Amino acid sequence: MAITLTILGSSSALPTSDRYTSAHVLNVHEHLFLIDCGEGTQMRFRQFKLHFKKLDKIFISHLHGDHFFGIFGLLSTLQLLGRKNELHIYSFPGLEELIKATQFGEEYTFPLIFHNLQNNEKEVIYSDNKVEVTSFPLNHRIPTCGFLFREKPKLLKIIKEKIKEYSIPVSKIQDIKKGDDFINSEGKTIFNNEITKRTENPRSYAYCSDTIYTPEIVPYIKGVNLLYHEATFLENLLERANTTFHSTASQAAEIAKAANVEKLIIGHYSVRYKELDEFLVESREVFQETYLAIDGLQYSV
Amino acid sequence: MAITLTILGSSSALPTSDRYTSAHVLNVHEHLFLIDCGEGTQMRFRQFKLHFKKLDKIFISHLHGDHFFGIFGLLSTLQLLGRKNELHIYSFPGLEELIKATQFGEEYTFPLIFHNLQNNEKEVIYSDNKVEVTSFPLNHRIPTCGFLFREKPKLLKIIKEKIKEYSIPVSKIQDIKKGDDFINSEGKTIFNNEITKRTENPRSYAYCSDTIYTPEIVPYIKGVNLLYHEATFLENLLERANTTFHSTASQAAEIAKAANVEKLIIGHYSVRYKELDEFLVESREVFQETYLAIDGLQYSV
Repeated sequence: MAITLTILGSSSALPTSDRYTSAHVLNVHEHLFLIDCGEGTQMRFRQFKLHFKKLDKIFISHLHGDHFFGIFGLLSTLQLLGRKNELHIYSFPGLEELIKATQFGEEYTFPLIFHNLQNNEKEVIYSDNKVEVTSFPLNHRIPTCGFLFREKPKLLKIIKEKIKEYSIPVSKIQDIKKGDDFINSEGKTIFNNEITKRTENPRSYAYCSDTIYTPEIVPYIKGVNLLYHEATFLENLLERANTTFHSTASQAAEIAKAANVEKLIIGHYSVRYKELDEFLVESREVFQETYLAIDGLQYSV
Repeated sequence: MAITLTILGSSSALPTSDRYTSAHVLNVHEHLFLIDCGEGTQMRFRQFKLHFKKLDKIFISHLHGDHFFGIFGLLSTLQLLGRKNELHIYSFPGLEELIKATQFGEEYTFPLIFHNLQNNEKEVIYSDNKVEVTSFPLNHRIPTCGFLFREKPKLLKIIKEKIKEYSIPVSKIQDIKKGDDFINSEGKTIFNNEITKRTENPRSYAYCSDTIYTPEIVPYIKGVNLLYHEATFLENLLERANTTFHSTASQAAEIAKAANVEKLIIGHYSVRYKELDEFLVESREVFQETYLAIDGLQYSV
């Protein structure tokens, strides 16, 4: 099954006509994880043919408006669509009260469960049998987290012919898939690697926005398949990047290189840039496998 | 100079891909009056080439999210664009606190001035030398106002040749433009209608959303040039309209007919309607001069 990332919004604080503010959807085996929720996220869901019913968890990196102003409308829409299932929101404290205030006393018909983030150290904030989500500290003007989504290692596959060959009973199969050796009725050990084969490697996606250039995050995102790192400015506005606690395209690429990731996506562009080609040129000078976040584009993880 | 209405959002509570939630912009001689501010209003400003700098006043009809969830992002954008001028917001109580809460302690650099609406009776809520804005009670599930925008009567025009003919001094011209007769140096009265001509009639626009069918509003909107009246449902869902305190296309047309308006625009369509033709058919059976609100369309008032 596929893991795909859809960019809903690639702009920084100010949206443009076609670049909305930050929101990513990670589809992990048909469960949708929404990462940040800028204004217009619910319209992007419809425009890019995503299904509200599959939305499971929402992760808000920090409480600047361009990363959460879409949540009020989204929740209202889920309500009007008759949602009954729990919805979990991971955020720094403050959002819950704000959402309650927008309801003016009306209650949602679905349970809304809030989980508080902290940015002192990395923390596993969600885990099921398919995926684990870790938050880790970024360095922005207010408390901000990055998120790492990592598939759980899959069970090994048993080689069919070996079941017959060694008369492996059904009761042992699950343990062998988890890595156990098999001891047959004569007491002989058949090593696991003789009777199983590896499945494909677990995949991983990391989201880093917003942050000033912070090499300290490299250990958290080491070797991920797909890294999204903000690139609000080009390198000639490095000073502006520093004072606003944002990164440049070069810096995003430096992080990707140091973390030895497979692919880098950059986004969160300042509204001053009409054309984005230069972002790609600048970033690829440091890290060749860079791609642009564009509203509506999908990337396979 | 022109008065034009631009529809930014024509959907009811749930937006679709191309129908955003309620927001209208009335351009009165290059001052923009924003009426309601659904999610995505600021993106619609950019998409439809409206200028943030010309935005002067915001009127929020009621505090259901589909009529104001765009205000947080819009204000944040005005701030980032460096606005210094006052911005006035007319709303029922509650919005000010909510806006403050979204700022998390940061202050806007421009003065934001709130004016409380009431819906007991009609009230002049704004007036300058060009236009007067009156609020009047609608009938919805929560306190809701309609708004009437009426151009001020223009000064009369003096017929140039008459100035010479009667030796009218400059000091008298302003009074004559306001309607005074002229008494010449010999004490003879020259009647106003001999030396002036009428300018075009003052124009007017009324906004009625959201409301259940309420003939009591007719006196407030009598004879306006352009009436916007919500039509959330078609007549076969009249019962649904009644229980949710909304109107049907037929009912909007009945109001337009009773008020003897020039033109009617209907909108605020339920998300269940993919096609809107039937709205026009149904409404025109009662009131021929009906037009559809479509995101991005402009109507001359």
